[in-house]
Amino acid sequence: MKMFLDCLPCVLNQILDASRMSSADERLHAEILKEGFALLARYEEYHSSPDLVADMHKIVKRVTGVADPYAQTKARDIKAALEVYPALTAFLDDDSIDLTGEACSEADLGCIKMYRALKIAVTGNILDSAIMKDIDLARSLDEELKRPFVLCDLSLFLEKLRSAKTILIIADNAGEAVFDRVLIEYLGREDLVYAVRDVPIINDLTIEDARAAGVDRCACVISCGSDAPGAILSRCDEEFRAIFDRADIVISKGQGNFEALSDCGRDVFFLLKAKCAMIAKRLDVRIGDYVFFRGGHDEPGT
Amino acid sequence: MKMFLDCLPCVLNQILDASRMSSADERLHAEILKEGFALLARYEEYHSSPDLVADMHKIVKRVTGVADPYAQTKARDIKAALEVYPALTAFLDDDSIDLTGEACSEADLGCIKMYRALKIAVTGNILDSAIMKDIDLARSLDEELKRPFVLCDLSLFLEKLRSAKTILIIADNAGEAVFDRVLIEYLGREDLVYAVRDVPIINDLTIEDARAAGVDRCACVISCGSDAPGAILSRCDEEFRAIFDRADIVISKGQGNFEALSDCGRDVFFLLKAKCAMIAKRLDVRIGDYVFFRGGHDEPGT
Repeated sequence: MKMFLDCLPCVLNQILDASRMSSADERLHAEILKEGFALLARYEEYHSSPDLVADMHKIVKRVTGVADPYAQTKARDIKAALEVYPALTAFLDDDSIDLTGEACSEADLGCIKMYRALKIAVTGNILDSAIMKDIDLARSLDEELKRPFVLCDLSLFLEKLRSAKTILIIADNAGEAVFDRVLIEYLGREDLVYAVRDVPIINDLTIEDARAAGVDRCACVISCGSDAPGAILSRCDEEFRAIFDRADIVISKGQGNFEALSDCGRDVFFLLKAKCAMIAKRLDVRIGDYVFFRGGHDEPGT
Repeated sequence: MKMFLDCLPCVLNQILDASRMSSADERLHAEILKEGFALLARYEEYHSSPDLVADMHKIVKRVTGVADPYAQTKARDIKAALEVYPALTAFLDDDSIDLTGEACSEADLGCIKMYRALKIAVTGNILDSAIMKDIDLARSLDEELKRPFVLCDLSLFLEKLRSAKTILIIADNAGEAVFDRVLIEYLGREDLVYAVRDVPIINDLTIEDARAAGVDRCACVISCGSDAPGAILSRCDEEFRAIFDRADIVISKGQGNFEALSDCGRDVFFLLKAKCAMIAKRLDVRIGDYVFFRGGHDEPGT
């Protein structure tokens, strides 16, 4: 997905935050911003916002020498998510909660439970310290879980699922992985692959974080080979691209992966919370809305 | 006042807004941002944020050919302010409203009325479309008027006022001028000078706007000779600087003038609403707080 001009000031704010998390030396912050301006001027060379963001954060890492500025944030988010894990499974199992509304053509129990499982996984997307700072998970969880999807291709997904052998989930943020576990455990597929970032980038999930979140116990966790906060295929390794091409179902979590894969050319189920005005505008929803939809076939470069 | 690094992404957002107000052509917006990046990289050459902002907006004007992108916004704000003018004078005259709290050492009627007059003038500062978009004036006015100052050097001001012959008020935004009229009319000084920007810059007041707001009927309106959204003395003309130096009392309205004059070396009464996190931090108040304080003696470059 082509980036909006509005992404540029936002990216600048993001690397200023990351600089401050990496070092208290304001001279380094200034040096990073100055290098950032030069790179921002070349934004048109980039496929999408996460493509540019990856290189912007490389500046922060090089100048400060800190490889994982968000390590503590990620650990805190995973810990907070693990604490609410019992509440998430309780929510999944509570059949009295039916959020589906018009979303399901077949309102059987399996359908409303799958809806809740998807809703749990996407709700983990609130644990994104890059955009939504200082979220009080315990306070907002119940309300967020009970907000229904405003777009929901559940029937399409259930139909695909009936014949699907291989499922790939592309992960997003660290704490969110605990929420994804609930969906993965409910799907109950032995061959499910869960792809994460290759190296630390913002608060996105790496293999190490995935282990801390316990996802390795219910899925085959792999790296996508990319250092970007979104699975931009040209930055991913061959092994991942082969899995991506062959998977019967791909579920892409979060905004960054949507921006990376909206024009990838194959069916992808995008599962995300619209967290910024640009993504909300693009999806014709409001900021804060939850969506689950089949896409992936946008015109390249749009 | 030295700018914060946080001002840089904010300035970038501001010129993107101004670009869109000036032209619908996205190629021009991109061209403006690219030139903007190069200028932002040289931010240390600038005295303060309004100094940089002036040159950033020059890019917008040159590339789009639009000299006053905010003309319509300013006209709308002045119109909205003129509509509430009777409510403002009614608020001034309502002696049952005493917001002074601990602010006045002498709680006589003149004192609480002066407090209200200053409070009216500063409340006009909410009409700032560069920072606070789409404010609903009619709905928020009463609440904003009744919010007391969190800093208030009223006693100091009253003391100065007793012997002062010449008063200079440095204006800020367009619609705000109508609110300033109430203060000026209450002060009732024949020799009061009201200084405005030399050319259109963001939604700041020019001589033409001041006439539309009716300020020319109660004050001597002059240009400060500067094109910046803050009275940076090195950008102002000699006539203004002479008036500034000789005035017995200078009242500076808004954030931009505070950033420009915090280290000017003479007593200035700053009258503003803290509208961004950086100014709030600098003044040790919260965003949205109203302040009236004597300053102007900060160490240069801080």
